[in-house]
Amino acid sequence: MSEKNSALQAAKAELQALLSGTSLKSSADEMEKYGSDETEDLFFAPDLVVLPRTTEEVSEIMKISKRYGLPVTPRGAGTGLSGGALPVQGGIVLSLERMNQILEIDENNLVAVVQPGVVTETFQTQVEAVGLFYPPDPASRGSCMLGGNVAECSGGPRAVKYGVTKDYILGVEAVLPNGDIIRHGGKLFKNVTGYNLTQLLVGSEGTLAIVTEIIIRLIPLPKFRQTLLIPFDTLDGAAKTVAAIFKQGLIPSACEFMEKDAIRASEKHLGLTLPYGNAEALLLVEVDGNRTDVLEEQRDQICEVAMNEGARDVVLADTSEKQKEVWRVRRATGEAVKKLSIYKEEDTVVPRFALPELVRGVKEIAKRHGIVTICYGHAGDGNIHVNILKMEMSDSAWNQSLPSAIEEIFRLTVALGGTLSGEHGIGYSQKRYMPIAFKPQELTLMKQVKKAFDPDGLLNPGKVFPD
Amino acid sequence: MSEKNSALQAAKAELQALLSGTSLKSSADEMEKYGSDETEDLFFAPDLVVLPRTTEEVSEIMKISKRYGLPVTPRGAGTGLSGGALPVQGGIVLSLERMNQILEIDENNLVAVVQPGVVTETFQTQVEAVGLFYPPDPASRGSCMLGGNVAECSGGPRAVKYGVTKDYILGVEAVLPNGDIIRHGGKLFKNVTGYNLTQLLVGSEGTLAIVTEIIIRLIPLPKFRQTLLIPFDTLDGAAKTVAAIFKQGLIPSACEFMEKDAIRASEKHLGLTLPYGNAEALLLVEVDGNRTDVLEEQRDQICEVAMNEGARDVVLADTSEKQKEVWRVRRATGEAVKKLSIYKEEDTVVPRFALPELVRGVKEIAKRHGIVTICYGHAGDGNIHVNILKMEMSDSAWNQSLPSAIEEIFRLTVALGGTLSGEHGIGYSQKRYMPIAFKPQELTLMKQVKKAFDPDGLLNPGKVFPD
Repeated sequence: MSEKNSALQAAKAELQALLSGTSLKSSADEMEKYGSDETEDLFFAPDLVVLPRTTEEVSEIMKISKRYGLPVTPRGAGTGLSGGALPVQGGIVLSLERMNQILEIDENNLVAVVQPGVVTETFQTQVEAVGLFYPPDPASRGSCMLGGNVAECSGGPRAVKYGVTKDYILGVEAVLPNGDIIRHGGKLFKNVTGYNLTQLLVGSEGTLAIVTEIIIRLIPLPKFRQTLLIPFDTLDGAAKTVAAIFKQGLIPSACEFMEKDAIRASEKHLGLTLPYGNAEALLLVEVDGNRTDVLEEQRDQICEVAMNEGARDVVLADTSEKQKEVWRVRRATGEAVKKLSIYKEEDTVVPRFALPELVRGVKEIAKRHGIVTICYGHAGDGNIHVNILKMEMSDSAWNQSLPSAIEEIFRLTVALGGTLSGEHGIGYSQKRYMPIAFKPQELTLMKQVKKAFDPDGLLNPGKVFPD
Repeated sequence: MSEKNSALQAAKAELQALLSGTSLKSSADEMEKYGSDETEDLFFAPDLVVLPRTTEEVSEIMKISKRYGLPVTPRGAGTGLSGGALPVQGGIVLSLERMNQILEIDENNLVAVVQPGVVTETFQTQVEAVGLFYPPDPASRGSCMLGGNVAECSGGPRAVKYGVTKDYILGVEAVLPNGDIIRHGGKLFKNVTGYNLTQLLVGSEGTLAIVTEIIIRLIPLPKFRQTLLIPFDTLDGAAKTVAAIFKQGLIPSACEFMEKDAIRASEKHLGLTLPYGNAEALLLVEVDGNRTDVLEEQRDQICEVAMNEGARDVVLADTSEKQKEVWRVRRATGEAVKKLSIYKEEDTVVPRFALPELVRGVKEIAKRHGIVTICYGHAGDGNIHVNILKMEMSDSAWNQSLPSAIEEIFRLTVALGGTLSGEHGIGYSQKRYMPIAFKPQELTLMKQVKKAFDPDGLLNPGKVFPD
């Protein structure tokens, strides 16, 4: 028996003693299930999967893994798009799915306390039932978990007005790689007591500590919304309208962009058609608030801006059904586009005003490399998902063109003042591109921060940093 | 000549070669000036003061200080309230006051780029001139600098609606203790590319790196505001009204609290009187927005809530002059109270709804120790400045009572789910209390983070962590 294998067996025996029967899994079927997420076709089988129910169990698991030198990869719902939850060096997958309690919705302080395995939409439904609002709404919110949202600093359409996950996280309980349980922050809207470990942990992709409890800021739920669908004859017209809306001092609660092929894929996927589905580009713009007269005023201002920038029309989704349909099309885009072909997705983000240049540049790069791209995403944030599709391309052409096309797209993104990922994270699939965004000294500093938390390098190894 | 002295002389020679004449100071007068800030009566003389004009100069200064093992303490305007800018181990004070350029106000992206030495109010005036808004408004905004605001994560009255400094910082350029120049973030509203070093640096009190450029998010400037002055016969009535306002779903743009002695001190200091200046407690509540009808609706709701909770009256400051006067009284409180006596100020913060308990508890503790306290501050954030005054107390009684009274106040704060500092920072004056807020493992982790940035411990030593 190899050294690794005997360490694994010894660790397994200790984990069996610690955890109840169904909380430790090692069958081939289960290893299959926990070896992939939503990132392209990546697969890495773990050796063991543990499903703790308490913070103390997480702490003990970390102590055992440390004792036997086994990697631990934390996992939420496995909906990640950069391979962050994949056990790329084997070892233990630590799934937080059973720590799924909403511990408290504190209406007096507008705060909630949750465990990491709570499904985002479940949480949103519950807080909305008492008139409160948790805005971050990643596309996978029906299945993704708040712990994963914290790990990746998830965004979504509403980020443009309400901010991303980090803007709602006031504090955490977390388990360090050595098993220590720490707390930071609280039900506090101001806090300069020691370093902001909470904000360091948000977006750290499960590489610094395992978050076991989350304190979340809530806001009052806006009562009304208006949803507009705005078709354009050119990508440029749509991109310029986005900048013009914000220049007017308007802050929509969503400002989404889809190019023609994205719309078409989504319509086909869902078997429905949108008005002006044949436009070159669509914007989906929403405003929300507590007074319909104010919303109508904002809606009219947006119409005026869009028509000035060359929109073909502005369609108001004036019923709840029509709003849902428009959002169904937008939300299905990711899945629909990925069904078309083998793909690679990039999560580019640039300053909002640089959006037209980014979209134009991506199309130029794609043309030069003979590849197909479909762009859509959160235009109001300058966060565009660029899907590169293999389609009919030969394997050899694809394998040759893809790396340099991606590198060019990222170099353009960075040259425009942007960066590699707005909301999907770096994880495993994007780590090789980190040197495009950071100088060696910057990467060294981040590695030192990693080492401060995880001196043995056992927590979610093989992520974020280029090999 | 001692070893330290010869290192100092050698470093001075190198600094002289690097910097122009007036950028290096070592006269006794100047050392006096740079040896204190606004924190009580603390004084620590530096050996040298440098006033670089460029990031490259800051980098060279750090390399020189490292070579000679000399501590470097960064400094903005010296308005800090926890001694963060004091060179408690001597060495070099690095003042950012000459790096005072607003590099860009980017109206297309609603972002500004500034150097750390820009005075906060100067910046606010300039962005407001183009219809934009930078909300954080610490009491010292007329003289404090944005770099210091970033170091301390400054707040102020508007934080209750708009958040604190960290919520506006999108990116930084910074110099590490080894002289490396790093950048993180950008004009980006979403970013999950590597660890969030920007948010780690905000509030790190100049102990991790020296911020030399700041990318700041701006928002559209609200057009109108309404200011209400609400007198109460009891502290409790005021504190309960605060919680009730937020429970109604109202988010005022300021919600400030002053107890009677704070009002009296401020009136006397300014030589003016407020309506109901004889109340036990006053709330100053403001709403802002773009439509007067919406503001009037909110104002009426606040009036109703306050009267239900036992307010004596609600006074509308309906002219710009009256608004200014009310704010002059509130803003002068800190200075006025501190003129009354030798004092020690605590920057307690608790969950908003725990405010009545905090205020009641502070008064009980004070009574038990025979000390005088005056409370005021940002009630909407649960952030109350507790000023403990010596008044007629003998030196020996003061020296005996003070430490245990402060400790009890902090233990109460933490027991209520709060912490030591909401916006003043820990710096030098509060570091001994850190073990009340953090477990040893948590402090150890923070020290490891410090070490990841500053392995030699030369950047702003003697701060944040208890000895």
